Amino acid sequence: MSIRAGVVGAAGFAGIEAARFILGHPEFELVAATSNELAGKRLADLYPNFEGVTDLVFSAHDEAQLDTCDVVILAVPHTAAIAQAPALVKAGVAVIDLSADFRLKDPAVYEQWYQVKHTATDLLAEAAFGLPELFRDGLEALAAKHAAGEGVLVGCAGCYPTATSLAAAPAFRAGLAGEGPVVADAVSGVSGAGKKATERTHFCFADENVEAYGVANHRHTPEIEQILGIEGRLVFTPHLAPLDRGLLSTVTIPLGSASVDQAVLDEVYQSFYQNAPLVTVLTDGKQPKTSSVAGTCRAHVAAVYNAHANVIVATCAIDNVGKGAAGQGVQCANIVFGLPETAGLDLIAIPA
Amino acid sequence: MSIRAGVVGAAGFAGIEAARFILGHPEFELVAATSNELAGKRLADLYPNFEGVTDLVFSAHDEAQLDTCDVVILAVPHTAAIAQAPALVKAGVAVIDLSADFRLKDPAVYEQWYQVKHTATDLLAEAAFGLPELFRDGLEALAAKHAAGEGVLVGCAGCYPTATSLAAAPAFRAGLAGEGPVVADAVSGVSGAGKKATERTHFCFADENVEAYGVANHRHTPEIEQILGIEGRLVFTPHLAPLDRGLLSTVTIPLGSASVDQAVLDEVYQSFYQNAPLVTVLTDGKQPKTSSVAGTCRAHVAAVYNAHANVIVATCAIDNVGKGAAGQGVQCANIVFGLPETAGLDLIAIPA
Amino acid sequence: MSIRAGVVGAAGFAGIEAARFILGHPEFELVAATSNELAGKRLADLYPNFEGVTDLVFSAHDEAQLDTCDVVILAVPHTAAIAQAPALVKAGVAVIDLSADFRLKDPAVYEQWYQVKHTATDLLAEAAFGLPELFRDGLEALAAKHAAGEGVLVGCAGCYPTATSLAAAPAFRAGLAGEGPVVADAVSGVSGAGKKATERTHFCFADENVEAYGVANHRHTPEIEQILGIEGRLVFTPHLAPLDRGLLSTVTIPLGSASVDQAVLDEVYQSFYQNAPLVTVLTDGKQPKTSSVAGTCRAHVAAVYNAHANVIVATCAIDNVGKGAAGQGVQCANIVFGLPETAGLDLIAIPA
Amino acid sequence: MSIRAGVVGAAGFAGIEAARFILGHPEFELVAATSNELAGKRLADLYPNFEGVTDLVFSAHDEAQLDTCDVVILAVPHTAAIAQAPALVKAGVAVIDLSADFRLKDPAVYEQWYQVKHTATDLLAEAAFGLPELFRDGLEALAAKHAAGEGVLVGCAGCYPTATSLAAAPAFRAGLAGEGPVVADAVSGVSGAGKKATERTHFCFADENVEAYGVANHRHTPEIEQILGIEGRLVFTPHLAPLDRGLLSTVTIPLGSASVDQAVLDEVYQSFYQNAPLVTVLTDGKQPKTSSVAGTCRAHVAAVYNAHANVIVATCAIDNVGKGAAGQGVQCANIVFGLPETAGLDLIAIPA
Repeated sequence: MSIRAGVVGAAGFAGIEAARFILGHPEFELVAATSNELAGKRLADLYPNFEGVTDLVFSAHDEAQLDTCDVVILAVPHTAAIAQAPALVKAGVAVIDLSADFRLKDPAVYEQWYQVKHTATDLLAEAAFGLPELFRDGLEALAAKHAAGEGVLVGCAGCYPTATSLAAAPAFRAGLAGEGPVVADAVSGVSGAGKKATERTHFCFADENVEAYGVANHRHTPEIEQILGIEGRLVFTPHLAPLDRGLLSTVTIPLGSASVDQAVLDEVYQSFYQNAPLVTVLTDGKQPKTSSVAGTCRAHVAAVYNAHANVIVATCAIDNVGKGAAGQGVQCANIVFGLPETAGLDLIAIPA
Repeated sequence: MSIRAGVVGAAGFAGIEAARFILGHPEFELVAATSNELAGKRLADLYPNFEGVTDLVFSAHDEAQLDTCDVVILAVPHTAAIAQAPALVKAGVAVIDLSADFRLKDPAVYEQWYQVKHTATDLLAEAAFGLPELFRDGLEALAAKHAAGEGVLVGCAGCYPTATSLAAAPAFRAGLAGEGPVVADAVSGVSGAGKKATERTHFCFADENVEAYGVANHRHTPEIEQILGIEGRLVFTPHLAPLDRGLLSTVTIPLGSASVDQAVLDEVYQSFYQNAPLVTVLTDGKQPKTSSVAGTCRAHVAAVYNAHANVIVATCAIDNVGKGAAGQGVQCANIVFGLPETAGLDLIAIPA
Repeated sequence: MSIRAGVVGAAGFAGIEAARFILGHPEFELVAATSNELAGKRLADLYPNFEGVTDLVFSAHDEAQLDTCDVVILAVPHTAAIAQAPALVKAGVAVIDLSADFRLKDPAVYEQWYQVKHTATDLLAEAAFGLPELFRDGLEALAAKHAAGEGVLVGCAGCYPTATSLAAAPAFRAGLAGEGPVVADAVSGVSGAGKKATERTHFCFADENVEAYGVANHRHTPEIEQILGIEGRLVFTPHLAPLDRGLLSTVTIPLGSASVDQAVLDEVYQSFYQNAPLVTVLTDGKQPKTSSVAGTCRAHVAAVYNAHANVIVATCAIDNVGKGAAGQGVQCANIVFGLPETAGLDLIAIPA
Repeated sequence: MSIRAGVVGAAGFAGIEAARFILGHPEFELVAATSNELAGKRLADLYPNFEGVTDLVFSAHDEAQLDTCDVVILAVPHTAAIAQAPALVKAGVAVIDLSADFRLKDPAVYEQWYQVKHTATDLLAEAAFGLPELFRDGLEALAAKHAAGEGVLVGCAGCYPTATSLAAAPAFRAGLAGEGPVVADAVSGVSGAGKKATERTHFCFADENVEAYGVANHRHTPEIEQILGIEGRLVFTPHLAPLDRGLLSTVTIPLGSASVDQAVLDEVYQSFYQNAPLVTVLTDGKQPKTSSVAGTCRAHVAAVYNAHANVIVATCAIDNVGKGAAGQGVQCANIVFGLPETAGLDLIAIPA
C-alpha cells in the first residue's frame, strides 16, 4: 500500500517536520511539499539534513495536484486552512490541519481570540479534534467515514494544548480536581516561535535567556479550556527557553477540599494511558525531560501530589514540533487510514 | 577606606562570584578566599576568567585569619554556617551567610525541611534576613549595631525565594491577594545546581532539556512562605533549563472575589520599588528576561493582571548567582557598612 | 532473520547509542546491554529517551552470554577491548570494537601513544579497519570469512579520524596533495568528552565556550596519519564547542607547486563517494553543518580550492557518536553480515 | 574630566557594546547614541539590560551634534565610515572607526576585497591601525596630534584579525616562522554575524551546529596578512559555533627547517605581552577559553610547539564584540586621550 501524502506549507518548521516523518513512514509516500516562496528549490537546499536523503523539490501550491493526494497535511497560518480545507475535503482528501482554524468548536470563541470571522463553520462542525489520546472516538469515526470514500478533516491540537492537556486530563476526567484557578506554566523551545527570523528567534537574544510571553492573552488558552472543560479557569503562561525542540507544561490542579493519595494518582494516570503507545507515565519521582522526546511524537507525563498545598502538579514533556504538531498530524492520519497509530512514529530520541 | 573581606567556600559558584564582585568593589579588599580542597592554587587556575586579573591563591580555612576580616561571606553548605558563624560574629566580624542556615526564623521549620538540629538558635534570633528590598529595616538595624563595634549576621535569601518574593511581595503587601494556592513555577540555569560535576550538570544531559525537579518538596518552599506570610499555600515547582546564569520565577496570585486594574497594579509595583536601585519594574507588556540581568545583582519585575481567570501573574528575573546569592550578599554588606547599596554592583549585563 | 546483538559498555555514550541503533534495526535484536556498574537497572532509568520504548535491563558482563551473540559491539575503554575481543572472536562472534585497541596497525605506534603494551597483536593483524568508505575491501573480506563460520574483528575508526579522513582522503588518493604540514582543526560537541561528569563536561564550564585541547599530543594523530598515509605531517588540533552531538573537521591540504580547479575538485570528491550511501558531497559553496547529521550515521563533505594560498580546504561534518562511533559500528556490522550498508541507519536528522 | 563620547550605529551589536563600555567608563560620558531606525526609542527598549541603568534615547544621526563630541565611535557598515569620518576629523573629533574602511593600508587591496572605490585615501594614509598591542606607536602618535588640537582617526582591527594576530604576531616578530601556508581556523559566536535576523542567526539553525563559512574568500584575509606581513600565505577559515560572544583563533605556523623549544616559545610570548595589560599568556598546557573573556576587552593567548609536525600552534580567545570591536575601540580611545589603557575596561568575565 502506498498512501499519497502532500504537505502544504512545507517550508516552515511544522511542515518540514511533517515531510521528515512522511519520508520515514512505511505506508505514506511524500508526493508534494508546497511552498510558494521556495518553489523549485530542493528541500535539502533549505534544510540540509535532507542532503543524501531526498532530492524532492518544493512545489508551488497547486490545488489540482493536492486533490490527487490521499492525505494532505496543512501546515499553514490560521485563516489559510479555512480557505483551503473545504475544497480538499470535497475532493475526498483526508485533511490534517495543523493550524488553529478547526480546533475551537465554538466559532464565536475563535472569532474572539483570533479576531477574524470563521467562514467554514459547517466543516468545523464535522471536524474531529486531533489529539488521539483524549479524543480517539472522533478520529475513529472519521476513519469509518473516510473508508466509505468521503473526505474528512482533523483539526489537530496546538503544541501547548497537547502537553498541557496530556498532563492534566487524567486528573480532570477522574474527577479529582476541585474549584479555582488551574495554572499552566509552560516552557517551549525556540522552534515554537517559527521559522521566521525575528528578534525573538535571533540566537543572541534567545540564547541564555528565559522569559514569559503572551502573558494573560495567549490564544491557546481557550483551546486548553475546551479540552479540559474548565472555561474561564485557566491561567496559561508560556515561556521561551534556549533550546530548539521541546515543550514542558507544568499544570497545578487545585484539589479543593478533597485530597488524593500518590499511589492512587499514579494508578489513575497509568490506567488512563494504558492503551496510548506514544504516552508514557513516569512514576517514583521521575520527571519528564524534553530531551527524552526531542525529534519524536512521544509524550512523557508525571503527576505528583503536593500535600503541602493540597494540589496536583502534573507535567508533560513533548517535542513541540513533533507530538505538538507534525507528529500528531501523522498520528491522526494513521488512525484515519486504519494504520497502527505509531506507524512512522517509532523514532527514539537521542539518549540523554 | 578599605574593608577587609573574606570569602569562605570560595571555590563554589556563589563563593567565586562573591570574589569577583569584591575584586571589582571600590571599598572592599579581598584578603581571603578559602577552599580547603584547592588551597595553594590560584583562583585563576580554576576559573581562568581571573587570568590577568588577580594572582590571589585559595587558602585553607583559617579561623584566626578570618577573624581579622571586617566582613566574611559564607558560601558554604547548610550546617557549615551554623558551625562557623558564631565565632566570627563573636570576633566582631560582619558575617554574610549565603547558606540556608539563618533564613528560617522558626528552628522547627528548619529542622523539618533540612532534617538536622539547629544548634545556633540564639544567633538565628539576632540575624537579619538578607533581602534588602523587602527587609531593609533589619539590615539597617545591624548597620547601627555593627557601627557600635559588634559582630553581626545576615542570613541571605535563597535564589528562588529572592526572585519569587520580589515578584509577589508588592501584591501581597498591598493586600491585593485573595485566598487559595499561590503557584510559583520557576526556571533556573544550571549554575543553580552547583559546581559539582554530576549527571544533572553534565552538558549532554542539561543541554536541550527542560525539566521540573524537587516537585512538591523543594526546601525553598517554607522560606518563600515565611517572606510572603502565606504558610501552607505555596505550590513551588522549580525547573532546570539549558542556560548558565539566570532564574525566572512566574508567580500566579489568586485575587479571590476582588479584582484589580492593570494601571493600579503597575502603580503598586513601581511605588513599592521606587527606592530600590537594583530592582526595575517593567510595564507596557514588557516581560523580564534573564539575559538582561546575567552577571549582575539586578532584578527585573513585571506584574500582569490576567482578567480571564482573575489572577495576577507576576514575574521576576535575576541572576541566580548574582542577585540570588553573591551579589545580594555584597548588597547586604554594603548596607551593613553604611555604603551606597549599589557599591561594586553597578555592572551592566551584556546587551541582549 | 534475526541477528542477536550485544553491546558491552552500554551505559556510556557510544554504547547506548549503539543500543538505540540496534533497537531500530530491521535485522538486529538487542539481547544484551552490559554495564557492571548499572546491572539490574533499566536502560530507561538512565536514559529516559527509552521510556515507552524498551524495558531492557543492563546486565553484568557475562562472557558466556556474549558468546551466544552473533555480533558484539565493544564500547569500552582502550585495553579493555584487547582483554575481551580474543575470546569472543574465538567463539565465532563478529566483534565490532569501538575502542582504540585495534586501529593502529603497528603495535609500536599503539604502545607509544597509549603507553601500554599491546597483548593481542595476532588479532590486530587480522582485524579490519572500520571505516567502510575508505576500507571497504577489508570489511568485505571479513564478511566472507564470517560467512564461513569464523569469528571476526573490526577495529572501528575514531570520531576525529573518521571526519578528518572522509574530508581529506579523496584529495590524497587522487594525488592532489603536495608536501608540507597538513592541518586538521576539528571541533567536537561535548558528548565527545564522554559520559563521565567532570569539570570539562559540566554545563557551566562547557556552555558559551570554545577551546582547543590535546594540542600537539592528541592520540588520534597517528590514526589519521595511518589512514591518509602522511606519517609525521599531521597537525591535529581538536576543539570543544557547546553542543551535544556533532563534529566538524576542517582540513587544510597544501598543494605545493601544483594547483587544482574547483570543478575538478568537486568531480574528484563526488566520484570518490558515488557508492557511499551515507556520505554526501556538498558543492556550490555549501558547507557541511553538524546539525544536518546529528543523531545519524551520515557524513557531509565539501572541498574548496583556496586559490589565494593554493591549498584545498576540505570539511566534513558527522555526529561524533553516530558516524563517529556507534553508527559506524552498525554500518560495519551490516557489511560483515551481508546486509545493506544502511540497514537501521536511514534516520534523518531534525530539520535545521 | 568628562570626555563627551558619541556612538554612531548604536543599535547594532558593536555599537550597543560600545555604549555599555562608555556608560561604565570613569572619564567618558555617553552623549549620543545614534540610530536612524530607532530614533526616539530608549536603548533599554531594544536592549533591556539597560533597564534601570540608563534612560538614554537613540537619536537620529546629526552631524552637528556629533561634531561637539570629543570622541565618536563609528559602528557602521563599511563605506559608511568613509562617508562620515572626514568631516568629523575635520571638526577636531577623535574618530574611532570599527568598520573595515580604514584598516587596509593599500586602497587597491580594499577595492579588490570590498568591491567598492575608496574615496578617502588621504585620511586612510593618516589613520592609525587600532590594535594597541601590535601598533602602539601609531596610536601614541595620534595622541600627540590630538593633544595639539587636531582631529584624528583610528581604523580598528576586525575581530578575526585581532585574535589571529594576537596569537601569531609574537612568533612572526621573533622570526620563528618558516615558509609555507599559515593556517588560521577560527570559531566565532553568533554575535559575529550581527544583529540582523537572518536564517544564519536564527536560534534553531545556529543551535547545536558548527559550520565553516566564507571559506577561501573571507574579507579578513588581507587584513591579517597585512598585520603579520604574510601576503598570499594565509589560509583563513572562519566557523560559526552556538555561543553568543566569543572568538577563538587557532593558528598553525610552519617552522620550516628550524625548530623551537617550548620554554623559549613561552618566553617569547610572555616577553612580547609583558606591557599589555589586556593580554594574558597562558602556559603549562593551559588553553584559552572564550568564556574566560566574554563581555570583556581581554585576550588570552597560548603558543604550543607541536614537535610531531614541527609547527607552532598558537591560540587566542577574545570576545568578538569586546576586544574584537567595541572594547578595542575604547582601548584605542583611551590611548588617544592619554588615559590608562584599561580605563573602563577592567570588567571581569563571569567565572567559568
